[in-house]
Amino acid sequence: MLIVQKYGGTSVGSLERIRAVAARCVKAQREGHEVAVVVSAMAGETNRLIELTSQLRPGPGDREVDVVVATGEQVSAGLLALAIRELGGQARSFLGHQIKILTDSAHARARIQAIEAERLRACFAEGCVAVIAGFQGIDERGNITTLGRGGSDTTGVAIAAALGADACEIYTDVDGVYTADPGVVPGARKMERISYEEMLELASLGAKVLQIRAVEFGMKYGVPIHVRSSFSEATGTWVVPEEASMEDIVVTGVAADRNESKITLRAVPDVTGVARRIFSPLSAEGIIVDMIIQNISHSGHTDVTFTVPKGDRERAIELLAERCPELTGEGANLAWDDDISKISVVGVGMRSHAGVARRMFEALAEEGINIQMISTSEIKISCVIREKYSELATRALHDAFELERPEGERRALEGERPAGRG
Amino acid sequence: MLIVQKYGGTSVGSLERIRAVAARCVKAQREGHEVAVVVSAMAGETNRLIELTSQLRPGPGDREVDVVVATGEQVSAGLLALAIRELGGQARSFLGHQIKILTDSAHARARIQAIEAERLRACFAEGCVAVIAGFQGIDERGNITTLGRGGSDTTGVAIAAALGADACEIYTDVDGVYTADPGVVPGARKMERISYEEMLELASLGAKVLQIRAVEFGMKYGVPIHVRSSFSEATGTWVVPEEASMEDIVVTGVAADRNESKITLRAVPDVTGVARRIFSPLSAEGIIVDMIIQNISHSGHTDVTFTVPKGDRERAIELLAERCPELTGEGANLAWDDDISKISVVGVGMRSHAGVARRMFEALAEEGINIQMISTSEIKISCVIREKYSELATRALHDAFELERPEGERRALEGERPAGRG
Repeated sequence: MLIVQKYGGTSVGSLERIRAVAARCVKAQREGHEVAVVVSAMAGETNRLIELTSQLRPGPGDREVDVVVATGEQVSAGLLALAIRELGGQARSFLGHQIKILTDSAHARARIQAIEAERLRACFAEGCVAVIAGFQGIDERGNITTLGRGGSDTTGVAIAAALGADACEIYTDVDGVYTADPGVVPGARKMERISYEEMLELASLGAKVLQIRAVEFGMKYGVPIHVRSSFSEATGTWVVPEEASMEDIVVTGVAADRNESKITLRAVPDVTGVARRIFSPLSAEGIIVDMIIQNISHSGHTDVTFTVPKGDRERAIELLAERCPELTGEGANLAWDDDISKISVVGVGMRSHAGVARRMFEALAEEGINIQMISTSEIKISCVIREKYSELATRALHDAFELERPEGERRALEGERPAGRG
Repeated sequence: MLIVQKYGGTSVGSLERIRAVAARCVKAQREGHEVAVVVSAMAGETNRLIELTSQLRPGPGDREVDVVVATGEQVSAGLLALAIRELGGQARSFLGHQIKILTDSAHARARIQAIEAERLRACFAEGCVAVIAGFQGIDERGNITTLGRGGSDTTGVAIAAALGADACEIYTDVDGVYTADPGVVPGARKMERISYEEMLELASLGAKVLQIRAVEFGMKYGVPIHVRSSFSEATGTWVVPEEASMEDIVVTGVAADRNESKITLRAVPDVTGVARRIFSPLSAEGIIVDMIIQNISHSGHTDVTFTVPKGDRERAIELLAERCPELTGEGANLAWDDDISKISVVGVGMRSHAGVARRMFEALAEEGINIQMISTSEIKISCVIREKYSELATRALHDAFELERPEGERRALEGERPAGRG
């Protein structure tokens, strides 16, 4: 088999841990597999490097920040190749420009466009483990680019796709994907399998085990992803194409995201084009708007509420005040709130089961938690609540959907209709 | 003018110092020059990275060590480019593979073979300062190589040669080349000019201001090198082609090198081929033998004494015992001594002035310092003495040749013949 393994910063956080990773690589190779390993920077290193650059006031998406930050993964790759050789294995490190991993030129959030697999195949042919610096690539002109936080996951899955690997193993400091954050919900259960779509929702909702882009890549190219612990041999969670049996599981997991802020524009004229006037300037500046709620109109006016990443809230307010003063006049009509958490339940079974929303709202109401905003998708329901209730709400929902019990033993939803496709 | 500036690790040792370097670059550019800057790793960084790799027991000249160590200069280059922009200048960083700087494949001691100057010229044309990571290059197959300790000097001079620069300024933590180490000789004088040949001897003899390969490059391509302090505006020392007036200066400087060990083979048969048998195995292992002394033969036997770098002494002894047991039999005939210093006086004027050796030997004798080995070249005399006399000997020779006085005011050598060319 051809296996891609990806190790996060904690897994390569010291020389001892790098040696443990090396042992795993050598073991997989001795079992007869061809092995490519993608590594992150040693824990803390990326933050150290970003801190250095930030003191020199870089521009947004600055080419030179990528030059500095990419060194973290370069160091890990060289050290792991040495550690594999120390154990008697053979290994060779590869940087973005050596493979090469071609990206667009969007520094700090580049997207992989193509990967040349020839040098990696030549490496396997020589009996070497290919050790690849994650998180980075080069653009057409040879500039170093980085893929954004968690980008090494994407490198791993993209390499697996390019090589047609049998699996991409994502080694991390947790042993799989849980029904909720085990730090918040002691009874949280590790899932055996989860669909790409569910994983995508969970990742978008703040579950940090896997980067969104990585899941997208996996889904697009059908790469089976195995999220597992680098500190044990236990099977983790497989992220795979949706299977028919998955629809029987109504709710797969609960996620909380405290990283958003809420912005409200009050008494906005309810006329054609007003949404465009509000959201175009934000989009032009790369600010990602998540939930949007528009209330029913009263005497020709309406309220518009939406959420943005906390880090972009200040800039978003500035932009709105500057670009649409007619909507935000005198500041009085513009309000914001950083004190929120977005709590979500996810499951592909929602497509064929009713009653999920009702049980969610009931569970929150029973705890006296007020819901500020609601948004739904085909396989997800999200509610914005006050941040201080975040853990309480997570536990309440985990209980309400009996996620601590094996999937077959959960009680049915009230008003449930039998599973039917379409 | 087109100026290349090279800054060492101390000069870029903190963000404050990097900002000071940026200010110098911007100033030079605003004065109308085209500026390329070559940077070393931040002080301490290369040692930190080497220490990390050495714990994983790399092989000699290990490809992966270069991958790790090269990141030090990459970080400096990115940070300096940011700092220049912070000051309102324009800058762009370049790594070995981006320029590109082509080297051979001798990892950890690669030699520059070619430099493509086009991307740097394009950078100047855009009004940018080109910030270049020193110490590194790539070989034909795209592997990262490093040039060995002090290699950023060589990068600087090689870039200057490739661009046909008007000068290569080497910024360091001392303000020029001195007649002796000012830490040892308080009266040491900064030289205004020194020839490439003299600088080459001084660099070989342990004066650490400039790497030997850098001087060789400068000499080969006629690049004027200006060694100066990054902490002041004062003129430093120009390293330039030899000028006629330089021959009037008999001794330019005194250098001490404590980094060698002495090895003696006693009672070696004085037959053809014996030197080859001794030195071939050392050379094959890359051990550089410096001074070699062979005594007159007694009853068909002779003693051979030579020096090697201290770090290679143990390996050299092993090799000799293993490869020529007939010469080193029973260990009794093989002796070594780490407790030595090689003290040297250098000057192109020696070619046309007699009496230098005599004054040197007298000065050492007056201090009661025994001379163990002597070797001479056209412009240098070196003596091996006991290490504990190293500073005393340096001061004595500095005094004897009146190096603290301006060049015109020094007394003539006894038995001196008038300067005559050839």
